[in-house]
Amino acid sequence: MREYWGEIQDPIYGYIYITEAEKEIIDSFPVQRLHRLRQLAGTEYVYPAANHTRFEHSLGVMYLAGISCENSNISEHLTKEEIQTIRLAALLHDIGHGPFSHVYEHLLVRLNKTHEDLTQWLIEKSELKDKLQKIGQNPDTIGKLSVGKLESRGKNFVNQIIQSAVDVDKLDFVVRDTYHTGAKYGYVDILRLIHAFDVSEGNLAVDIGALSALESLILARIESFKSIYFHRVSRAAQIMIANAMDNAKDELGLVDFKAPEEYLALNDYTTWAKLKTCEKSRKIIENLERRQLLKCAYEQTFYVKDKTVSSIFSVEEIRNQIRDKIAERAHVPSEAVVIDVPNVPSVPYHHSILMQPTEIPVFHKTHEGEKIPQRLSDISGIFDVLRGFINILRVYADEKNREKVGEAATKTLSEMPSSAKISY
Amino acid sequence: MREYWGEIQDPIYGYIYITEAEKEIIDSFPVQRLHRLRQLAGTEYVYPAANHTRFEHSLGVMYLAGISCENSNISEHLTKEEIQTIRLAALLHDIGHGPFSHVYEHLLVRLNKTHEDLTQWLIEKSELKDKLQKIGQNPDTIGKLSVGKLESRGKNFVNQIIQSAVDVDKLDFVVRDTYHTGAKYGYVDILRLIHAFDVSEGNLAVDIGALSALESLILARIESFKSIYFHRVSRAAQIMIANAMDNAKDELGLVDFKAPEEYLALNDYTTWAKLKTCEKSRKIIENLERRQLLKCAYEQTFYVKDKTVSSIFSVEEIRNQIRDKIAERAHVPSEAVVIDVPNVPSVPYHHSILMQPTEIPVFHKTHEGEKIPQRLSDISGIFDVLRGFINILRVYADEKNREKVGEAATKTLSEMPSSAKISY
Amino acid sequence: MREYWGEIQDPIYGYIYITEAEKEIIDSFPVQRLHRLRQLAGTEYVYPAANHTRFEHSLGVMYLAGISCENSNISEHLTKEEIQTIRLAALLHDIGHGPFSHVYEHLLVRLNKTHEDLTQWLIEKSELKDKLQKIGQNPDTIGKLSVGKLESRGKNFVNQIIQSAVDVDKLDFVVRDTYHTGAKYGYVDILRLIHAFDVSEGNLAVDIGALSALESLILARIESFKSIYFHRVSRAAQIMIANAMDNAKDELGLVDFKAPEEYLALNDYTTWAKLKTCEKSRKIIENLERRQLLKCAYEQTFYVKDKTVSSIFSVEEIRNQIRDKIAERAHVPSEAVVIDVPNVPSVPYHHSILMQPTEIPVFHKTHEGEKIPQRLSDISGIFDVLRGFINILRVYADEKNREKVGEAATKTLSEMPSSAKISY
Amino acid sequence: MREYWGEIQDPIYGYIYITEAEKEIIDSFPVQRLHRLRQLAGTEYVYPAANHTRFEHSLGVMYLAGISCENSNISEHLTKEEIQTIRLAALLHDIGHGPFSHVYEHLLVRLNKTHEDLTQWLIEKSELKDKLQKIGQNPDTIGKLSVGKLESRGKNFVNQIIQSAVDVDKLDFVVRDTYHTGAKYGYVDILRLIHAFDVSEGNLAVDIGALSALESLILARIESFKSIYFHRVSRAAQIMIANAMDNAKDELGLVDFKAPEEYLALNDYTTWAKLKTCEKSRKIIENLERRQLLKCAYEQTFYVKDKTVSSIFSVEEIRNQIRDKIAERAHVPSEAVVIDVPNVPSVPYHHSILMQPTEIPVFHKTHEGEKIPQRLSDISGIFDVLRGFINILRVYADEKNREKVGEAATKTLSEMPSSAKISY
Repeated sequence: MREYWGEIQDPIYGYIYITEAEKEIIDSFPVQRLHRLRQLAGTEYVYPAANHTRFEHSLGVMYLAGISCENSNISEHLTKEEIQTIRLAALLHDIGHGPFSHVYEHLLVRLNKTHEDLTQWLIEKSELKDKLQKIGQNPDTIGKLSVGKLESRGKNFVNQIIQSAVDVDKLDFVVRDTYHTGAKYGYVDILRLIHAFDVSEGNLAVDIGALSALESLILARIESFKSIYFHRVSRAAQIMIANAMDNAKDELGLVDFKAPEEYLALNDYTTWAKLKTCEKSRKIIENLERRQLLKCAYEQTFYVKDKTVSSIFSVEEIRNQIRDKIAERAHVPSEAVVIDVPNVPSVPYHHSILMQPTEIPVFHKTHEGEKIPQRLSDISGIFDVLRGFINILRVYADEKNREKVGEAATKTLSEMPSSAKISY
Repeated sequence: MREYWGEIQDPIYGYIYITEAEKEIIDSFPVQRLHRLRQLAGTEYVYPAANHTRFEHSLGVMYLAGISCENSNISEHLTKEEIQTIRLAALLHDIGHGPFSHVYEHLLVRLNKTHEDLTQWLIEKSELKDKLQKIGQNPDTIGKLSVGKLESRGKNFVNQIIQSAVDVDKLDFVVRDTYHTGAKYGYVDILRLIHAFDVSEGNLAVDIGALSALESLILARIESFKSIYFHRVSRAAQIMIANAMDNAKDELGLVDFKAPEEYLALNDYTTWAKLKTCEKSRKIIENLERRQLLKCAYEQTFYVKDKTVSSIFSVEEIRNQIRDKIAERAHVPSEAVVIDVPNVPSVPYHHSILMQPTEIPVFHKTHEGEKIPQRLSDISGIFDVLRGFINILRVYADEKNREKVGEAATKTLSEMPSSAKISY
Repeated sequence: MREYWGEIQDPIYGYIYITEAEKEIIDSFPVQRLHRLRQLAGTEYVYPAANHTRFEHSLGVMYLAGISCENSNISEHLTKEEIQTIRLAALLHDIGHGPFSHVYEHLLVRLNKTHEDLTQWLIEKSELKDKLQKIGQNPDTIGKLSVGKLESRGKNFVNQIIQSAVDVDKLDFVVRDTYHTGAKYGYVDILRLIHAFDVSEGNLAVDIGALSALESLILARIESFKSIYFHRVSRAAQIMIANAMDNAKDELGLVDFKAPEEYLALNDYTTWAKLKTCEKSRKIIENLERRQLLKCAYEQTFYVKDKTVSSIFSVEEIRNQIRDKIAERAHVPSEAVVIDVPNVPSVPYHHSILMQPTEIPVFHKTHEGEKIPQRLSDISGIFDVLRGFINILRVYADEKNREKVGEAATKTLSEMPSSAKISY
Repeated sequence: MREYWGEIQDPIYGYIYITEAEKEIIDSFPVQRLHRLRQLAGTEYVYPAANHTRFEHSLGVMYLAGISCENSNISEHLTKEEIQTIRLAALLHDIGHGPFSHVYEHLLVRLNKTHEDLTQWLIEKSELKDKLQKIGQNPDTIGKLSVGKLESRGKNFVNQIIQSAVDVDKLDFVVRDTYHTGAKYGYVDILRLIHAFDVSEGNLAVDIGALSALESLILARIESFKSIYFHRVSRAAQIMIANAMDNAKDELGLVDFKAPEEYLALNDYTTWAKLKTCEKSRKIIENLERRQLLKCAYEQTFYVKDKTVSSIFSVEEIRNQIRDKIAERAHVPSEAVVIDVPNVPSVPYHHSILMQPTEIPVFHKTHEGEKIPQRLSDISGIFDVLRGFINILRVYADEKNREKVGEAATKTLSEMPSSAKISY
């Protein structure tokens, strides 16, 4: 403990010890800004207590990255300096998020960018650059590592701690989102998982002794997806915020940032306030402020065995044609119908990772200490069924159009060639 | 609350309110005896804090039965008196257990009995009979209901609250065993499930809106099975206790009970003390007292898709032949080899229910309130894969024979016709 | 449950069931606005996860009010309609809060108002008036009850459920603030307390059987005060926000509201955004955004036995004189020195209630059911010492002035007549 | 982690890592025996889930001792080997307990022994001696340290980690007893306290920055004393068990042990079974088995400011005279009246430490790192009032004598000179 500068209290992990270098970075503007970026924008309409921000999540991710590096299987491959670098990259992994986090990603897509591109950009160009250099860190390294893209020379596990199917980002949010929502799907034994981390041919792998914890994690992610992230009411709110930003983006300059500081000036607080001032978005915000949300008029859940078949709904033109057909049939304008599917990048909140789970590397350790790689789908019937698992198609409309849009959607979608639906 | 006599504090549910009638029954000898029957005998060798008893479990089951009956979907079919009957039956559902609970069942099999037969017997023949009559209850009704076998005249849901795939017994222990072991697999939203209970054509059914909670329950049961109930070290201890009881049963008269009082005199405390006095069991108990446990020499996990195919290992003769062949090959006596499979009644701890999960009745409620029955396996890919899920074959031996028995088992079992293994 | 319209998930209480009337009010603008009023503004600089809002707190208070009314000691004095009224008043008790809650109260003082005045005003004048009437409630009654000032005709306990030393507001926040901060001082057995509620001569009283829970509550409140509400770093942030609002209030019209809608337009989000645009406050906000906070240069904790002796520091003129003397001595301008004491209304966050704890009515129930009133201080040594317990005097300055202001404060305050200090 | 042999799962701390040397000792008979010594014998009649044993408590104490030694303030004074010694001493601190723990101490008093004497004896004379030597430990050192009596040559803090007002024994049980009872008094931030440990002039001291955690600990201990350890119903059961052992001790040879093995053969299981076979104790046990407990006929709580004044009730003769007078007055035999006070060694469960709290050494650390010792009672009004706090006098009788004994006790005790009572 001696080496730590101080501690920060966290309801999940207790005390998070930080070094002086970490304190310098935590107190920077790009990190402090995360106090005003909620982790689950829109979810408060279902889970009122889910007001946690990307700030405490980022501290949690740094903490878990540190714990991972204390595991002797991992630490034997790392110097103390490398561990500090990994912790900092973990701390900064989310700073590129825009207002309302994933909802803003909807706008970034138009710029051919993701929040991860912006994370890297901010680390290399904002005040963080100087601060990192001052504490002896290479901004370029941290920038790449924070998005899991550092050239690894045989140490790819370093990226995978931060970005993979079992990365500490996911481990933190599965537990943290559970804690603050009260939804009970994420009580996963993440410390057991982290203790089972090991390095196998340079990659992060999980000792099969922790299979139960791993299966629990996978189920927790799916249940959280259905019950929290893609809850029909959360989605309604997110779509409305996305539409408000879309409508007002030119007038408010929401994507016209040039300098890092301009981007960093955007957060939930300032953007919400702006959207209220703009004629093109105000009405939507006022509806949100009275909880007058879009209603789900139609919902279909698909179980996808073959994850490689991509959905025709991911093609924007086809989606728009269907939307227009439904609108026509329901005698409402096209804008009155919203088609929502999770794995489409032009829709705010995409979960492509969930849709295409990579095989998680696992191994069995013999009495002699040899690590025998295994295929998770061979040994876990649960994993096998859970990967590429679920997809949901929803059609939203206003309260007053709900019924007729629902009927039109039912008709329209039942007419579709079954291959289109099967493709899910 | 007015109607309640008092409350009992429980770490899981907070305060459990009890009526005066319930207090009478709780303070009887057959129920107080449960203080000395641990819920998970043998598990303390893996989870040292798992010392909870069937007493608090039984209170918890009564509590959840009561909560279920407060659900208006259920309560509208019941009178206040029927609810009291259900709560009492729930309270008494486990009184038939013998010392070390499921381990003793190994001996009961020889008498062609189960602990449930004894539960019914005790309710109808012990001091409980008088006490129940005194508080206006019919012992026969309570006895049958406590094992889920009351003739129900269109109200079968009453039995199913106490005995079914989602009964309050399972709901209590999935949460309680998690709490006391510290294993994190059972944080299931059981109140959500209970709130989703309904009656459909006289049967207990679950509103599909609680699908996530249901899927979590199913996974929790499987992970608990692997990590707690059938943990290789817990099993080693249970097998040893079973062997000790088997060896000493005639000398100690462990199955010679006639009167209810004779059976009730058996509990973990008295039986443990007795086993130490008997030449035939003392050595085993002394080994347990120094944690010198049987070692797992061989383990194979099977994934069973077709649950109806029964295993050849469930046939005792075949199991004995294989055991003898392994012993011969390893040059050890037959008694030095133990074959353990979970779904065999002659082995202490069988989980036949887990192996043959009945389809849980679920329904979708329309806007008009109509309940449309659905097949869980149709709508839940998770359920589909999880039912009939897993089987484990283990061969145990003493520390000193472990290696040679392991080798012999590997050879012997690889020679078996594949159909035998496939049958799993 | 039948009578409830739906449920809301809360991480503290599980499911909060709401009636249709409650849903109407919850979805109103004044209540939904609470999503954007954090419960503990400023505290995120110490407890990063403390981002809970007055929205979920208000739901929690409504829930506990409902639980209190289910206690048969209470319910026997109430009709179903009265219980609905009490729940609604509990739900609305905080709607009068301004941006950053207690920090804004600093400005309200200038208008001779408290947030409770505004709560009553909003209930009677905003859109809530119509909505309440529509569901058959009297806005005047709800308004008065929401601040504990309903004329009670012998039923003063109704007010005391919402406003007293053991009201459900305090019971909710002691638990909720603990949950979200991670500080472990508030795990109070509030359900035990609520079950011990009774009515004694028209007043809310607590059965002495719950003395341990009561003592825990009192200690929890004191420890929370020291560790959360009046933490030196939280206070630094709150003072800065208060100063920013003070500086900019005329330019931004922060207290110029006339219509309810004008007041309701103020929330944490919009006010933060405004403060960034105003020359007079921007610098302070920028410092907050980089966590460059005021530093505590001097701190003195007083233990106050005689709670009736009021402090000379509560007199603004004297406080200003001392501030000026310290500033002069340290050669810094007066504005560079901030004196902070908790029980002064012109300082943002006052805890006058903590400073002047009323005797909590308790009673002992005889075997015959008679309630014998007792003085809590007679039977609880803990209560006796804890009431009127603590006061803290702090002097804050900028990082660069910290040392010299600290020295000047030490000198100046040691010269003060001891009676001034003793008065604490 | 590398250095650890394995891990044990604990519901309080998660994973407890153990070394190979520790595994050797854990698997010994004297430690495994603790599986059959419940921590809170008798408490199950109030808190049914409180079935935790001294085994998991001992692991927890070892864990916390280890955590304490990881605190750099402590670790800088210790070698790795010394830390191993401290952990082992912590593990073994409770092995001297007899059946039903503190209840058996009632019998030990007759031998002029305490469970701590037996702890030391067993470490130095049982099979532990060899096992400790085999792993390179000195049994004499471990024996003394396990009861906090090692000659410390300036390192008295080593003893105080295991035996003092803030030792890891108390820290573990305050949390663990809370967890298993469900009573909410012990959610103390014990990690905060341990992180605040430091060495001051060779003694263990607590940084005053953790004052809130310290005050919470003190209150938790008092509330736990009242609500758990000295609960009137727990006490009734404990008195009955003590009486049963007293009556049967000669016949059963409960205190006739010579060799360590003879003593170790006594545990809750074997003793309970024996007490059922002995004519002199059977009836009491049968009453316990039907929850027919002694009833509290009279209770008086005293608040003791002056802890040095010892009670006249601690003198056995006086206690017996009073008992006889009450019995005479109530026309019942002397044995039908039981006087119970907590701080009397001849009564089973004494809490002398609670009654005579030593001043806990605390210090304030200056900016320069100097540790300024402080008197806790000077800086903590709470501590001041809580030390030497409470005493309880109870008179128990059978259900049928309850009323008349109650009346006789009220009369007899009101006649006593007030000085006798004031002495409390």
